[in-house]
Amino acid sequence: MDSLRADHDLGFLLRFENIAWYTDGAVRILDRRVYPMETRFVTCRTHGEVAQAIADMVTQSAGPYYAAAHGMTLAAYECRGSRDPLSYMERAAYVLSHARPTTAGRMEAITGAALTQARLALESGRDPVEALQAYGAELMETRYRNIDKCAQALARLLPGDATVMTQCFAETVVGLLLRDAAAMGKQVRLICPETRPFLQGARLTASVAAQQGCQATVICDNMPGMVMSCQKVDLFTSAADVICMDGTVVNKVGTFQIALCASHFGVPYYVTGSPDRGKPSASAVTIEYRDGASVLEHQGVKVTLPGVQGLYPAFDVTPPGLVTGYVTDRGVYTAASLPHYFAPGETGDFPSA
Amino acid sequence: MDSLRADHDLGFLLRFENIAWYTDGAVRILDRRVYPMETRFVTCRTHGEVAQAIADMVTQSAGPYYAAAHGMTLAAYECRGSRDPLSYMERAAYVLSHARPTTAGRMEAITGAALTQARLALESGRDPVEALQAYGAELMETRYRNIDKCAQALARLLPGDATVMTQCFAETVVGLLLRDAAAMGKQVRLICPETRPFLQGARLTASVAAQQGCQATVICDNMPGMVMSCQKVDLFTSAADVICMDGTVVNKVGTFQIALCASHFGVPYYVTGSPDRGKPSASAVTIEYRDGASVLEHQGVKVTLPGVQGLYPAFDVTPPGLVTGYVTDRGVYTAASLPHYFAPGETGDFPSA
Repeated sequence: MDSLRADHDLGFLLRFENIAWYTDGAVRILDRRVYPMETRFVTCRTHGEVAQAIADMVTQSAGPYYAAAHGMTLAAYECRGSRDPLSYMERAAYVLSHARPTTAGRMEAITGAALTQARLALESGRDPVEALQAYGAELMETRYRNIDKCAQALARLLPGDATVMTQCFAETVVGLLLRDAAAMGKQVRLICPETRPFLQGARLTASVAAQQGCQATVICDNMPGMVMSCQKVDLFTSAADVICMDGTVVNKVGTFQIALCASHFGVPYYVTGSPDRGKPSASAVTIEYRDGASVLEHQGVKVTLPGVQGLYPAFDVTPPGLVTGYVTDRGVYTAASLPHYFAPGETGDFPSA
Repeated sequence: MDSLRADHDLGFLLRFENIAWYTDGAVRILDRRVYPMETRFVTCRTHGEVAQAIADMVTQSAGPYYAAAHGMTLAAYECRGSRDPLSYMERAAYVLSHARPTTAGRMEAITGAALTQARLALESGRDPVEALQAYGAELMETRYRNIDKCAQALARLLPGDATVMTQCFAETVVGLLLRDAAAMGKQVRLICPETRPFLQGARLTASVAAQQGCQATVICDNMPGMVMSCQKVDLFTSAADVICMDGTVVNKVGTFQIALCASHFGVPYYVTGSPDRGKPSASAVTIEYRDGASVLEHQGVKVTLPGVQGLYPAFDVTPPGLVTGYVTDRGVYTAASLPHYFAPGETGDFPSA
């Protein structure tokens, strides 16, 4: 994995753009704050450094889940030979899960599953580091398969010549959507709001799509309504940091505004992901506020005079009434049918997409 | 005027931030692309250079109107002693009026009035350059008085402790609003979307308000809906590049989205300005598309890979159903009462605010 190529080929883009992986006593995380302009990796020597990297937005979207899983592997490495490795790993699980507040529940599901793997390994005399490496790889494979199912379902919803508006960087789902739509003989053009302040829509979604040969157009975050009013937009899609059981979507700030514009102009809004059984409604989700200074600068250049404050809510809340459908690995649901996503008795804590 | 102070005092901010003025065979224009981080002036030696400066966004908001008036003074200087100065000035009027398409009608009203002043001066043996200098000064004074009336009417609409969301840079009206509200014993806090790609909301509105001692908070353009959903916002206000006779507002792109969010959350939206009798509805307005490359960079730093396109509609269209009231120099109107703004027989081509 150390020989990871950075040449933006399809495999790299689709499978590794969020990558974080453990090897030889360190977790390496692709720095999504500068990718794809630069391909640079942050090396973490402790699970605390992994948590800090997650808090510092080194990785985003699904990246923190992988980082947390591999951070648990690193924690197992850190406490090798100690008398009570599980207590050490339990503390590590808490630190990693709570690096960012909005997704803590799902992070706990992942670190909890890692703890279980470590416990089973220790009980049967296997090396917990190896067991957790296998768990991290399996997590990525499972997630990738599920995202591919979402992408295929979304591609089926598109007309033959489709203009799709995105929001932020819907991880691998956009890349797979373009591949799957092409396989169905469909043309897709993307319109990507830039997603201030970190510009994931411009830097990642649009850049990665253009590299795949797709026509990708960037607009500022104040333009989605204008574009929908004067151009044919067939569909708006985003991923979700949380899909509540009542259909409320918590996602990158700006999603709500675009969904409201889509509703106003009759453009369907499909969100990809899976519902979170631990989140009945928006009130169960903590919205993260990040450092307002990020809003007052552009690529490191301060743009306001002293005395001006910045405010940076990282997510917003889109009510189910603005969502046309929930595109999951198990098919497309409405807000009303969303509880049927789960089989009877299924806990549903694992983020399948 | 050459000794113009750049120390951001109230008078400077309220009256001169859009300034363009003629002196000694040149028009000097405050470069609003870098103000207030830098106070720099662009010097134009021909009316063609003035038109280019307008097209290049050296000045914005009401600035192009002043620049056009003083550009006509410069044209009068350029053709002094020629056989047919009026023909020369007619061509100059066309060039200046059509520097940007969306406001061409009102620009023509100003350059047309300047032509009339020049003709009268020539007929009575006066110096047309001096006559046009007087016209430019009068234009600014009239406009300033009218904007102050708007600001006072808007201040009366605020509660005693008000949170106001702005859009872009509503010229002098925000500065005067803060002064007038303070005189009424009202506290005003501003929330200013940054207004990509030129960042007028961050650079100008928020910075200028903070300099006046107001609490000003900048948010990204994807955050107004989120902020309205979780904070008390008492009022959303913007100026308008065009207010059509049916109440449609054409203004800096992003206005529509904020107005839609305001309507969704029950926040009143008041637009300042005066209706344009030459524009019955949106179909009479040409929306300007500017260079999409502006969208692909931040403070000069490119943020996308090659192959990505940019789209930059400079304005959007807000339907009258989303506007609570039209705050003019003659009082507050609704879309239905807007035609009563004009006295019977009044042409109303002159931009009063």
